[in-house]
Amino acid sequence: MEFPSLSDIKRAHTRISKYIYNTQIMTSSTINEIVGGEVFFKCENFQKVGAFKMRGATNVIMSYRPEERLNGFATHSSGNHAQAVAKAAADAGVKAYIVMPSNAPQVKVDAVKGYGAEVTMCEPTEEARAEACKKVIERTGAIQVHPYHDTRIIAGQATAAKEFIEEQPELDFMITPVGGGGLAAGSALTLGHVSPTTKMILAEPEAVNDTYKSFKSGKLEGVKDPKSIADGLLVSVGELNFAIIKEYVHDIYCVSEQEIVDAMRLVWERMKIVIEPSSAVAVAALIKHKEVFAGKKTGIIITGGNVQLNELPF
Amino acid sequence: MEFPSLSDIKRAHTRISKYIYNTQIMTSSTINEIVGGEVFFKCENFQKVGAFKMRGATNVIMSYRPEERLNGFATHSSGNHAQAVAKAAADAGVKAYIVMPSNAPQVKVDAVKGYGAEVTMCEPTEEARAEACKKVIERTGAIQVHPYHDTRIIAGQATAAKEFIEEQPELDFMITPVGGGGLAAGSALTLGHVSPTTKMILAEPEAVNDTYKSFKSGKLEGVKDPKSIADGLLVSVGELNFAIIKEYVHDIYCVSEQEIVDAMRLVWERMKIVIEPSSAVAVAALIKHKEVFAGKKTGIIITGGNVQLNELPF
Repeated sequence: MEFPSLSDIKRAHTRISKYIYNTQIMTSSTINEIVGGEVFFKCENFQKVGAFKMRGATNVIMSYRPEERLNGFATHSSGNHAQAVAKAAADAGVKAYIVMPSNAPQVKVDAVKGYGAEVTMCEPTEEARAEACKKVIERTGAIQVHPYHDTRIIAGQATAAKEFIEEQPELDFMITPVGGGGLAAGSALTLGHVSPTTKMILAEPEAVNDTYKSFKSGKLEGVKDPKSIADGLLVSVGELNFAIIKEYVHDIYCVSEQEIVDAMRLVWERMKIVIEPSSAVAVAALIKHKEVFAGKKTGIIITGGNVQLNELPF
Repeated sequence: MEFPSLSDIKRAHTRISKYIYNTQIMTSSTINEIVGGEVFFKCENFQKVGAFKMRGATNVIMSYRPEERLNGFATHSSGNHAQAVAKAAADAGVKAYIVMPSNAPQVKVDAVKGYGAEVTMCEPTEEARAEACKKVIERTGAIQVHPYHDTRIIAGQATAAKEFIEEQPELDFMITPVGGGGLAAGSALTLGHVSPTTKMILAEPEAVNDTYKSFKSGKLEGVKDPKSIADGLLVSVGELNFAIIKEYVHDIYCVSEQEIVDAMRLVWERMKIVIEPSSAVAVAALIKHKEVFAGKKTGIIITGGNVQLNELPF
């Protein structure tokens, strides 16, 4: 697969703009003081479905002609991508078929059903999910929407960084967390095209540091049995995503589970916004390496705000 | 005491404007759908010290001439007013003396000390607090800042509704919670002066319904041993505040403890913002009486976002 071009990103932005919010950018005097620099937070927790994933899923679904969409769309996901595909399919007026593992939180299952999607439960293994999704597609003729390893997903997620740099053109750094790498690759590409002086930093949990290891060794490496509170980042980085990251990312910082929890708590307490653990990974990296960001302008994409309120780590 | 005039409110706004944020107004498609109307949220949880109380305290402290402020300011409070007086005194470059009950959460004590205030702990009774505060004032010559029964406090808190109605001039209703009545009276007065067609609604916990009872009977009534999760609303309405409320408020709605918790959870989950239980009282009143607000434009002042994250009700 080829890297998405700047035109792909611009076209994605035009295509999805009426289905998404151009989310606001917040600042925090407390966090500016801690860092000794200026920090800007692009609040994708305020995005439709509560996460940036709405951008990529909408770009994929709306890139098909209406007559191609008739059989609907399918994916397997326990997280924000499931809600994004469900909502984007509803926006397109077609059916979504979502395969969810049996350990997915009920609140997420309910949210997906709330957008009118048909939910199929399966065993919580990668194989069972893929198999169940394949069966649904055979039965329905739905088109599969991959969560990150797709040029159109990357171009869609890239629109968050595009809005960010258009509103704050003087950023020295931009930080996003990295999981599968849709947002990470899309953001890095965008900066490479429109603001090459802005350095792209990725943030990853130490416990799921596959992208970090791959970035340092130059070849794709995995992590066995990944466990982290940052449940959106448990997947390994995709091949295409990693190829882009290798070329366009300045550095990757890893943070501990405790640093993630502390950063999440800091943002809730001081900024009064609800962010999910995956978003806190980027904030934790900022604070851990504050000497890098002191005296600089740094943008952080707050990726989402979908949290189980009855299972908080504090 | 006389009611604050519109000039008092305007002067307060000019006086405090460089020390406070003109906080943003948010909307939520989910809550609009629930109500069947348009709802606007003025986010004083994003205000300095995390609550609207910063407005009134700043107005009182900055209304003294610099040479009158030299001995500093004192108050007794376990809540947001304590932080507000501490911060406003720091902004004025003078000392704050805060008497806090021994059952005040450590995080709040730390916050007050963080603004450089001197904290005196005392027994958690109204008498002990008043006595300790009196002693501090005798020792230091500090000026006392009352949390709500003060024309200048009311004029200061009134500036939130002023900003709100200037940005959203077509509101049919405005809702605030009522405790001591500084914000409630200030908001009602503002509407009476500049937007008399906007109906002012107050929201109160059923468990602390002194203002409701007083409003219905026409004379000040108390509540014995008030207990509510809405810890900012446990005080009884002030005399001056009630006189204003009687004249300018359209109606008062009471909500149960469960309705408060449900509304708080709804806002955290769907709007991704951290609001304190006292703020949720207004949202609960909106939802409980949604037939009143259907098809209308309603503004709610989200009063604050200071919450003990390790003591959540869900």
